Amino acid sequence: MKVVKFGGSSLASGQQFEKVINILRQDQNRKVIVTSAPGKREETDTKVTDLLINYATLTIETKPTNIVTEQLFNRYLEIANHFGLEEDKLQTIKEKIENLQYEKFENNDYLMASFKAHGERLNAKLMALILNHLGIRARFLDPEKFGFYVSDSANNAQVLDETYANIEALNLTDELLIVPGFFGITKDHKIATFSRGGSDITGAILSKGFHASCYENFTDVDAIYAANPNTVKNPYAITKMTYRELRELSYAGFSVFHDEAIIPAIEANITINVKNTNHSELPGTLIVPEANFEPENLVTGVASSDRFAALYLHRYLLNKEVGFTLKLLEILYRYNVSYEHMPSGIDDLTIIFDKSQLTNFKIKQLCQDIKATLQPDEMQWINDYAIIMVVGEGMRDNIGVLDRVISPLAQNNIGIHMINQGASRISVMLGTRQADANLAIEHIYHNFFS
Amino acid sequence: MKVVKFGGSSLASGQQFEKVINILRQDQNRKVIVTSAPGKREETDTKVTDLLINYATLTIETKPTNIVTEQLFNRYLEIANHFGLEEDKLQTIKEKIENLQYEKFENNDYLMASFKAHGERLNAKLMALILNHLGIRARFLDPEKFGFYVSDSANNAQVLDETYANIEALNLTDELLIVPGFFGITKDHKIATFSRGGSDITGAILSKGFHASCYENFTDVDAIYAANPNTVKNPYAITKMTYRELRELSYAGFSVFHDEAIIPAIEANITINVKNTNHSELPGTLIVPEANFEPENLVTGVASSDRFAALYLHRYLLNKEVGFTLKLLEILYRYNVSYEHMPSGIDDLTIIFDKSQLTNFKIKQLCQDIKATLQPDEMQWINDYAIIMVVGEGMRDNIGVLDRVISPLAQNNIGIHMINQGASRISVMLGTRQADANLAIEHIYHNFFS
Repeated sequence: MKVVKFGGSSLASGQQFEKVINILRQDQNRKVIVTSAPGKREETDTKVTDLLINYATLTIETKPTNIVTEQLFNRYLEIANHFGLEEDKLQTIKEKIENLQYEKFENNDYLMASFKAHGERLNAKLMALILNHLGIRARFLDPEKFGFYVSDSANNAQVLDETYANIEALNLTDELLIVPGFFGITKDHKIATFSRGGSDITGAILSKGFHASCYENFTDVDAIYAANPNTVKNPYAITKMTYRELRELSYAGFSVFHDEAIIPAIEANITINVKNTNHSELPGTLIVPEANFEPENLVTGVASSDRFAALYLHRYLLNKEVGFTLKLLEILYRYNVSYEHMPSGIDDLTIIFDKSQLTNFKIKQLCQDIKATLQPDEMQWINDYAIIMVVGEGMRDNIGVLDRVISPLAQNNIGIHMINQGASRISVMLGTRQADANLAIEHIYHNFFS
Repeated sequence: MKVVKFGGSSLASGQQFEKVINILRQDQNRKVIVTSAPGKREETDTKVTDLLINYATLTIETKPTNIVTEQLFNRYLEIANHFGLEEDKLQTIKEKIENLQYEKFENNDYLMASFKAHGERLNAKLMALILNHLGIRARFLDPEKFGFYVSDSANNAQVLDETYANIEALNLTDELLIVPGFFGITKDHKIATFSRGGSDITGAILSKGFHASCYENFTDVDAIYAANPNTVKNPYAITKMTYRELRELSYAGFSVFHDEAIIPAIEANITINVKNTNHSELPGTLIVPEANFEPENLVTGVASSDRFAALYLHRYLLNKEVGFTLKLLEILYRYNVSYEHMPSGIDDLTIIFDKSQLTNFKIKQLCQDIKATLQPDEMQWINDYAIIMVVGEGMRDNIGVLDRVISPLAQNNIGIHMINQGASRISVMLGTRQADANLAIEHIYHNFFS
């Protein structure tokens, strides 16, 4: 059987629902469907999740909510109308939307979690109603009803192990099961949401629990591409890649889904198929375990991200000093700052950070502390830092691939600040100035794919 | 003025002493001479230092010493004979050699230090006697007499700051000062030796104390070469390089002198001139401060060392875990093991060690501890590890140099396990299998120097 997840744009309107239903009809193995909340219908539209956040905020501030509840209901109603489903069939959805503001929550975090989760929850209900209306056997499966248990953390829930047993215990018939994504239930029956990756995580958990043969992840792109289409024109569509390749490319900005979101599927060695709801006839991209994987190309993908900054330290005889790095890491730990990489020379050390965890104030404090404790001869904070990842299982043990990564940069006068290979065997990591990153990507891409 | 140090082979025999004296005569600026102990006269000879170690061991074991004391005295006598210096002028040297075994020492460490130091000490005395005999004004300068103070550590002494003031207080006249290298005096008048670098350190300390215009270091090679002559035929003789270049190349096996030995000269920005006693007409190699340095070549030198081993760790989502590396370093710290480099991928970490600090037993324990604490998905100890350093101030900001390092390896099918650039701006560090290192050096060298 297959678990099939549809993203927000795939469920944004009646037309999109129609495509989804056709997809479900095409393959009897598609047994379990995970819904997202309705997304944007066009560029300027507001997602249902954002309407719900607005609704929650108004509720907390005890401001009038009648406009937003109407907006919300109309999103679902419009979809129902597309299929000729009578409005009175949507009575429970309407009531739920209107009653949310009167429910009691442990605190505002749980209030927010519960409001947000209803985007997915009501869309799953609606999907079941429409399928039944069209004569397709389908049933809304409430996470609370079958014990989709998560940890007691309102907006950063983690799935509990027993959930897998509860999924296994579910009987699969010819009836489709429609499960809302993005949230689970705590042991004391509160709704709690996943922090990132939303419905993708739910789909991955269900895939693992059901021992699915495939986890189909329907979104609005034809495939995962070997490079960002905004940087490289008509990039190669990857037909097959490994979990690890995806993880390394996600690190440097590949954003098909959050890499943590698919961990349960990876744990169960389930093939993930990324497909486009709007072009379901295309094969999409398969993401598979490393074992027995035969790479199509030397390089699978090239990505870059400028979410980094670096701190350069120099001190004569630095590497003779046992404990230098330890002291440094203890300072970072004290500031609750994690580092990404730490390339070292003989007397030099560069520490690369993810900028998102740093403020200018924190950087200043951190630098002062490091200076006072480690007394470097030279110290420099480098804000202009991009990391480029060139990734491919085919690179493993392939002599000369590094040369093919570096050469086009040399030929095009692109400076490399950092190069780091040796830990991961399936990737090369480069550091450049942010302004050079896109050009570097283009040249590297064309050296392997043209 | 210049401080001039002569190595053991430069002072091994009467002929060598003659070369040294000619060198001293050629330049009136050569005011302060640092002696080593007489080295080997030919391949199968025994160094005076080794004779002294033997003598110390026999003394500790209260075994007969008459043969070794005679061997020792004969080394000095043979040199004196070369200059027609009468044996009775060597009476104090003879007595010192014979009386050493009866002196009292705090412990056997200080006994060993004192015995060893007399190789240099008596050679300095002999040099002063011979110079005087030849009508050259010269004076043996006893480290004890002018306060060449070191820390209280028999075989790992560190110079004390006040020594520099004591050197400054010395009056320079037209009389040459002959100072024995390799040892100093503790505050309670015990002889203590430097752990490594021997006479080179003494010369560097004197250069700093005297504010020398140059520290000449005479040895038995014409110059420092851009590559090891055992690996590359007739390598380029470096005319000028920076302290930092020397340091980076020393790290990977350049063995002209121990890099720590010249720190005092570096601190005082003194130019070091490595010259050959046997070809003193050659310019040798200048080692200079980084400021205002104009590189002659893109790359200054290429070196490799196989004193390394590596530990590879892989764990999914490793880099999301704050404190992973900290835990790892705490384990290393507990075992008193320092690491050299730590290249990291997204979920991978390689830790490169200097093997000299590890035993098989320690490796096993360390690995067990790391496994238990960090629970990696994959872990591998790699013994076959060589590090290659390609070093040059000219590489700084030079786009394309990396490509010229990598290309010849790709063309010759040499696999690169690790590449690390980004901390040091004047070098590229590569990791290869040990069997590949020499071939890699050859190809890289020829790509820059042919």
